[in-house]
Amino acid sequence: MTDFNDVPAHVWPRGAQREEDGVITVAGVPLPELAEEYGTPLMVFDEDDFRSRCRDMAAAFGAPERVHYASKAFLSKKVARWVDEEGLSLDVASINELRIALAAGFPAERITVHGNNKSAGFLAYCVDSQVGHVVIDSPQELETLDFVARSLGKVQPVMVRVTPGIDAHTHEFIATSHEDQKFGIALAGGEAFAAVKACHRAENLQLVGLHCHVGSQVFDAEGFKLAAQRVLGLYRQVYNELGIALAELDLGGGYGVPYTAHDTALDVAALAKDLLAAVGQIADDLEITPPTILVEPGRAIAAPAAVTVYEVGTVKDVATGDGEVPVRRYVSVDGGMSDNIRPSLYGAEYDARLVGRYADGETVPARIVGSHCEAGDILVSDIALPADVRPGDLIALAATGAYCYAMASRYNAFVRPAVVAVRAGEKKPMLRRETFEDLVALEVD
Amino acid sequence: MTDFNDVPAHVWPRGAQREEDGVITVAGVPLPELAEEYGTPLMVFDEDDFRSRCRDMAAAFGAPERVHYASKAFLSKKVARWVDEEGLSLDVASINELRIALAAGFPAERITVHGNNKSAGFLAYCVDSQVGHVVIDSPQELETLDFVARSLGKVQPVMVRVTPGIDAHTHEFIATSHEDQKFGIALAGGEAFAAVKACHRAENLQLVGLHCHVGSQVFDAEGFKLAAQRVLGLYRQVYNELGIALAELDLGGGYGVPYTAHDTALDVAALAKDLLAAVGQIADDLEITPPTILVEPGRAIAAPAAVTVYEVGTVKDVATGDGEVPVRRYVSVDGGMSDNIRPSLYGAEYDARLVGRYADGETVPARIVGSHCEAGDILVSDIALPADVRPGDLIALAATGAYCYAMASRYNAFVRPAVVAVRAGEKKPMLRRETFEDLVALEVD
Repeated sequence: MTDFNDVPAHVWPRGAQREEDGVITVAGVPLPELAEEYGTPLMVFDEDDFRSRCRDMAAAFGAPERVHYASKAFLSKKVARWVDEEGLSLDVASINELRIALAAGFPAERITVHGNNKSAGFLAYCVDSQVGHVVIDSPQELETLDFVARSLGKVQPVMVRVTPGIDAHTHEFIATSHEDQKFGIALAGGEAFAAVKACHRAENLQLVGLHCHVGSQVFDAEGFKLAAQRVLGLYRQVYNELGIALAELDLGGGYGVPYTAHDTALDVAALAKDLLAAVGQIADDLEITPPTILVEPGRAIAAPAAVTVYEVGTVKDVATGDGEVPVRRYVSVDGGMSDNIRPSLYGAEYDARLVGRYADGETVPARIVGSHCEAGDILVSDIALPADVRPGDLIALAATGAYCYAMASRYNAFVRPAVVAVRAGEKKPMLRRETFEDLVALEVD
Repeated sequence: MTDFNDVPAHVWPRGAQREEDGVITVAGVPLPELAEEYGTPLMVFDEDDFRSRCRDMAAAFGAPERVHYASKAFLSKKVARWVDEEGLSLDVASINELRIALAAGFPAERITVHGNNKSAGFLAYCVDSQVGHVVIDSPQELETLDFVARSLGKVQPVMVRVTPGIDAHTHEFIATSHEDQKFGIALAGGEAFAAVKACHRAENLQLVGLHCHVGSQVFDAEGFKLAAQRVLGLYRQVYNELGIALAELDLGGGYGVPYTAHDTALDVAALAKDLLAAVGQIADDLEITPPTILVEPGRAIAAPAAVTVYEVGTVKDVATGDGEVPVRRYVSVDGGMSDNIRPSLYGAEYDARLVGRYADGETVPARIVGSHCEAGDILVSDIALPADVRPGDLIALAATGAYCYAMASRYNAFVRPAVVAVRAGEKKPMLRRETFEDLVALEVD
């Protein structure tokens, strides 16, 4: 047994383990059995893992409803029900995410609505559905929402999204706290305060707090603390000048997850403790009542809960002309950038393991590639794979629960994989595999 | 009228023009009328543009069947029929691309099949359908295909894909001629010749030529010439040692298209003339019969033929804290990275224009962003937009016919846009917009 037979516990679902016979099971269900029954590629969710991370977040931040699961990471009706049953709140960022949540029976009052470009029709649907919070993202939206709420004879509870002007040093695409971006209203220059005053004046909006988002894949509390420090300065100003004590502060999402064995897991409890204490101290220093802290993890709940199982097809050794890696083994699997665009889009890395058997012998420098007609269709760019990997082997990538299926395409006329949940030895299909009929269903002849 | 009212002819569809009233029409159909009828975002194909580029390619390379339209750029049954009617051949790279082509009635003998990871089932379907060529991508596939063809009692015409070891200096993700990649068999070290010999020995394979692919967005003939030089060396060797004069040489795709007004259009006729002359000269020098040159443009035919029309929603001025662009106007439209991932994935740039009216006055530094819950959801990162752009305006991005719809996702539960073709004043719906029912059709309750 080499290290390749390990199943790194901090990266794989909590219910995953390699059994005596070399097969990896999740929640007691062998992955090869699932691959046989549902085909590959296949996404497998460990339901208890997902739920346990909901509970960890709820415990860390003091109450489940303070934690909003971010739908954009992965949403299906079943997942919305899990989130509901765990008592968490839910973030949605489009009219269809809201529709899916409501269709699943998710309580509207625990839904928060995001988006930089909510249409009047979407806002009317929000108000009419009586969602818990709409997060206002621009002065224009503030006016539209007030008008829409007035038309419907309702008062809509809202937050205002502000940009505190912090760069959380994550990947450029997913750092969302600096000002030069599409989201939010800047604290600097008084724009956020002007929006707060406009909310206060608006008869059909009820301001309950401010929202900010530091970034994605954040592993320490410093960015959140700095954001809280800046935003709470505005709470002080709002109290001083308008006499309002805002009750809530939403610090958004961005809790990082380990994707590879080398990554360190985030200690959510410790981060929350540190952050909440800091917020308390900042509030004390500012002589304001500390607002309730709300958070919005999506990736941190969904990503570690799922793995994607592929079947190996072509195995090819390529002489690279590179002195350091003179020969690289290209291992093709039956999915790729259609079911996981993250390596191509963000340079994301993944932990991959053989799931059907023990690997023997030496490892070789390898690359796991997809089946798409594009050279950049790479799933794991640089990995040491056992030299005995062969066609027909099953390989799974861990921590694929967030932003994989959610961003899946039909590139090269590939179909979306099936998604199945497992719990206590039971299989629960969540989303069926697309068919050729689905692929051509939109054709107008 | 400012420059912003121009419609750069080398970037927009050939049938596009701005009319007296300021509206842009394509093939005589006003884009606002299409947006009204089909909703936004909307992809509009200029059918005559698409067909004219098929004919340009056919003329440049001497015969329509030598030009293979690459399905991966954009495929629907209607497009497959256009390609068929123009007499071109067709590339497919997956079993479902092949199925769509055959369902559209495309003649199997003019279909070439690509892919680094064709399953035995896919190969059997190819042989059984009597496709024109299968492009063999690995020694493993060679054996499998020979076995499959023998089982079916057929002889399959094939090409062998080789990597000549050239870096065409395009974006790293889409440069596919160097050796350290998943496609092909290296010329260097004799691997390609070994595969040719194995093909020659295989009783159920008929080798008709070699295939190579230089890269994507290639604007000059040099890379193709260098590749041809190297590959034709192998033709010489094959003739010398096996006595076979390979009849065809497929130089793949990669013909660049201009995406912005600053880009220069590729003169396909000139490039082809230059390339074919060079191939003739190289063959003369090698004292071999020049093979027929085949090419595989996808982007160069599909990209310029379509535009994507969006409606403007939120317009917001953001103080950036950047001395050079102190204020940037963020213009949100009702699509984004779900219908066009290329800016996020490849840093692609686009030409954007108001399509419903003339723009007045000064321009301001602006960014066109989508509606997704992600800061990186940017369609045009840096553009001077007229200061009077307002909610409700229609903006179209040109040259979106390739790799946009083909790579579309349902991120944030967005639905795929409708696709409509226009020709001589007529509207021909190609693909209907997805619905909420489509979105939840895969849910297993």
